[in-house]
Amino acid sequence: MTVSSFHPPQRILMGPGPSDVHPRVLQALGRPIIGHLDPEFVMMMDEMKGLLHYAFQTTNQLTLPVSAPGSAGMEACFVNLIEPGDSVIVCVNGVFGMRMVENVERSGATPITVEDDWGKPIDLNKLEDALKANPGVKAVAFVHAETSTGVQSDAAAIAKLARDHDALSIMDCVTSLVGTPVLIDEWGIDAAYSGTQKCLSCVPGISPITFSERAVERIRGRNSKVQSWFLDMNLIMGYWGAGGGGARSYHHTAPINSLYALHESLVMLKEEGIENSWKRHKLMHNALKAGLEALGLSLMVEEKYRLPQLNTVTVPEGVDEAEVRRRMLADYGIEIGAGLGALAGKVWRIGLMGQSSNASHVTLSLAALEGILKDLNAPIANGDACGAAQKVLLG
Amino acid sequence: MTVSSFHPPQRILMGPGPSDVHPRVLQALGRPIIGHLDPEFVMMMDEMKGLLHYAFQTTNQLTLPVSAPGSAGMEACFVNLIEPGDSVIVCVNGVFGMRMVENVERSGATPITVEDDWGKPIDLNKLEDALKANPGVKAVAFVHAETSTGVQSDAAAIAKLARDHDALSIMDCVTSLVGTPVLIDEWGIDAAYSGTQKCLSCVPGISPITFSERAVERIRGRNSKVQSWFLDMNLIMGYWGAGGGGARSYHHTAPINSLYALHESLVMLKEEGIENSWKRHKLMHNALKAGLEALGLSLMVEEKYRLPQLNTVTVPEGVDEAEVRRRMLADYGIEIGAGLGALAGKVWRIGLMGQSSNASHVTLSLAALEGILKDLNAPIANGDACGAAQKVLLG
Repeated sequence: MTVSSFHPPQRILMGPGPSDVHPRVLQALGRPIIGHLDPEFVMMMDEMKGLLHYAFQTTNQLTLPVSAPGSAGMEACFVNLIEPGDSVIVCVNGVFGMRMVENVERSGATPITVEDDWGKPIDLNKLEDALKANPGVKAVAFVHAETSTGVQSDAAAIAKLARDHDALSIMDCVTSLVGTPVLIDEWGIDAAYSGTQKCLSCVPGISPITFSERAVERIRGRNSKVQSWFLDMNLIMGYWGAGGGGARSYHHTAPINSLYALHESLVMLKEEGIENSWKRHKLMHNALKAGLEALGLSLMVEEKYRLPQLNTVTVPEGVDEAEVRRRMLADYGIEIGAGLGALAGKVWRIGLMGQSSNASHVTLSLAALEGILKDLNAPIANGDACGAAQKVLLG
Repeated sequence: MTVSSFHPPQRILMGPGPSDVHPRVLQALGRPIIGHLDPEFVMMMDEMKGLLHYAFQTTNQLTLPVSAPGSAGMEACFVNLIEPGDSVIVCVNGVFGMRMVENVERSGATPITVEDDWGKPIDLNKLEDALKANPGVKAVAFVHAETSTGVQSDAAAIAKLARDHDALSIMDCVTSLVGTPVLIDEWGIDAAYSGTQKCLSCVPGISPITFSERAVERIRGRNSKVQSWFLDMNLIMGYWGAGGGGARSYHHTAPINSLYALHESLVMLKEEGIENSWKRHKLMHNALKAGLEALGLSLMVEEKYRLPQLNTVTVPEGVDEAEVRRRMLADYGIEIGAGLGALAGKVWRIGLMGQSSNASHVTLSLAALEGILKDLNAPIANGDACGAAQKVLLG
C-alpha cells in the first residue's frame, strides 16, 4: 500500500455544495487545537451563538451548531420534536423532502405527504387542505430551498399555515441560509437546520440549528426520551449553555477546529453584511442566467421560484451530460453538479454559493461550458455567454 | 457584539482528549476543499480504508470513518445491530458503559447490566453468569478502555465469551486505539468504534468504525429499518463503496477537510509503525508514573489494568483539585482532566495520547505539577519528579 500525504487538486466548486472555502476560513481551521472545555473555547462558543443568531435572523436561545453534517441537523429536528405515534405533514418536492419522510417514519411517527412536482414550489392550497383534513398533526416539515431542484418555497406562508393549525414548523434551510433571506423570527419558524458547506462557505461537517421557545417547550415536555442520545437537545443544551446558567457539562467532544472555521466564516458574513450577501448571490445568478440564455440554455425552474444560489440547467437534447461535467473538471478544475433522483441525467446543477458566488467564477464557468459544448457539437445558440454575463455584472 | 477572528491560545493537551495535533495534520486539515464525489477524493477514501484496516488490525470490509464524533460512532453500532425488543448485555464500569445503556434503551431494546466498580476491569465471571442466565441476548457491549477511569478490560476474553454464547461483541475503543493493542480480527470483535481526538491525535469530530462479516449479516438481515437515517450503514456503505462495486452514491456530504486530517494522522501512524506507537505510549506512562511516585502521588487503577495513555491520579487529601488544574492551564498552558461522574473531585486524569505522549510533555507536566502542589502546600513527598521520569526515559 502506498502511503503518502494527500494533496488535493485545486478546484473551483460550482456544484450544489460544498462551495469554495476562503483562505481565512482554512487558516482558522488549521489553528492549534485547545480543549473543548477550555475557558477560551467557551468564550468563542458564546460569540458563535451571537453570530448564528445573525445568520438565522433570530433571537432564539436554543441556537447552536450540531456536531455533524446537515443530515444530522435534519434528524435532530425530528427526533427531538416528534414522538412515536405523532402525525407530521411533510411537503415533498424533491430529494430532501423525501429524506424528511424517512426521518418521520424512523422516529416512529406517521408522515402525511403533500406532494408537488420536482421543480415546483410547495402548493399552499394543498398544504392547507392537508392541515384541515388532518387535525392534530404535530408539525409541518418542508424544505425552503430544495437543493435537488433549485426551487424556493414560500416559507413565511407555510409557517403561518402551520401555526394557524397549531402545528410546529420544521424548515430545511441548508441551501438557502445566507444566500437568500431566511428570517426565522419574522416568519415564525419553530425549528430550522442548515449546513456549513453551502452559502456559509465553510467546511462540511457541521449543522447550525435553531429552535423557537415553542419548540423548546415541546422538547422539554416530551413523554418519551429522544431516540438519539447523540442528538438529544436536552443534553446538548447543557454543553452549549443554552438551557440558561453559565455551567458547561460534558456531552460529547465538540469538533473544535471545524468550529474555529465556522466562527471565521460567520465573522466574514458579519463583515460583508447579510443583506449584501443576499444581493451578491442575486447579482451572480442574474449574470449566470444571462450567459446561459446567450447559449440558448434554459433554467428548469420558473423564474419567480428560482433559487439564485442553485441553478438547475436543462441538458440540451443529445448531449452527454456526464461527459460535460467530466470535461469541466478535467480541463478547468471546475466542479458542477449532476441531477439527483428523478432529475439524474436531465439537468446540471450550477451552484453560486458563498465564496463561489463571484464574478470571476461565473465568467470562467460560462466560458468553459461554452467551449466544451461547442467542442462536443452540442445544439446551442451562438451567443456570447461571457459578454452577456459581464453586461449584468457591470450593471 | 465584538466580531473578530478567534486566535486560540497555545496549549499542551494532557487531558483525556483531545490530544495535541501535529502541525502536519493541521496543515492537511487546512488544504483547499474539493468535492465529496471528486475522483481524487474517492481515491483518498480508498486509501483511508486501508489505513483504518491497519489501525484496527482488521480486514473487515465495512470499515470507515463515521462523519461525527465517537458518541455517534457508539450510536451507529447500537442502532444498526440492535432491533427493538432485543436484549443486550452491557458491561458497566464507568461513564461510557452507562452511555451504552442509554443507547440500548433508546434503540428500543432491553439492557442487562453487568456492573463493576469504577476503577475495576470488567469481571469475566459475572459476564459469563449473565450470559448463562440470559440465553438469546443479541450482543455484549463493553468499553475496552474506560476514559472515565483509565481501566483496560480483557477484550479478547469478553469477545470470546460473547461468541461462545452466540452474541455479537460491541466494543468501545475510543481511548485505546493505537495507544495500546486493539486487535479486532485476532480477538474476534464484531463491532468497534473509536474517536480521532485521542491516540490518533487528529482533530475531533470523526469516529472510525469497523464491523465483522457476522455484524454485516445482522445489519443486512434486519426486520426493521435502522432508526437513524444519518447513521444507517446500509446507506453509508453505498458512499464508501463498502458494499462492493465501485460506484459511490450520495448519502450525506462527507466532512472533507477533517478526512484530509485523519488521512494524514493515519499516514503518520504507518510511518511510526503501530507497535512502536504502543511502545511509546507504554514508555511515557512508565516515566509519568515514576515521576508521580516520586511526589508520593498514586494512580487509582491497579497496575495490571492500567491504561498507559490515561492516568487517573488520586488527588491528595486537602488539595483543591480544580485550583491545581486552573493553575496548570494559567501558568503553563497545560490542560489536564477532571474526574467524571462518580470520580468528580477525587482524581485528575492525565492523558498521554498520540502526539501528547512524548518526553518533553511528560517532563514539563511533572515539573509544573510539582511546582504548583508545593506552592499550594500540598502534602506531597519531597522526591525529584523530573529526575525519576528521566531515569525511565533514558532506560
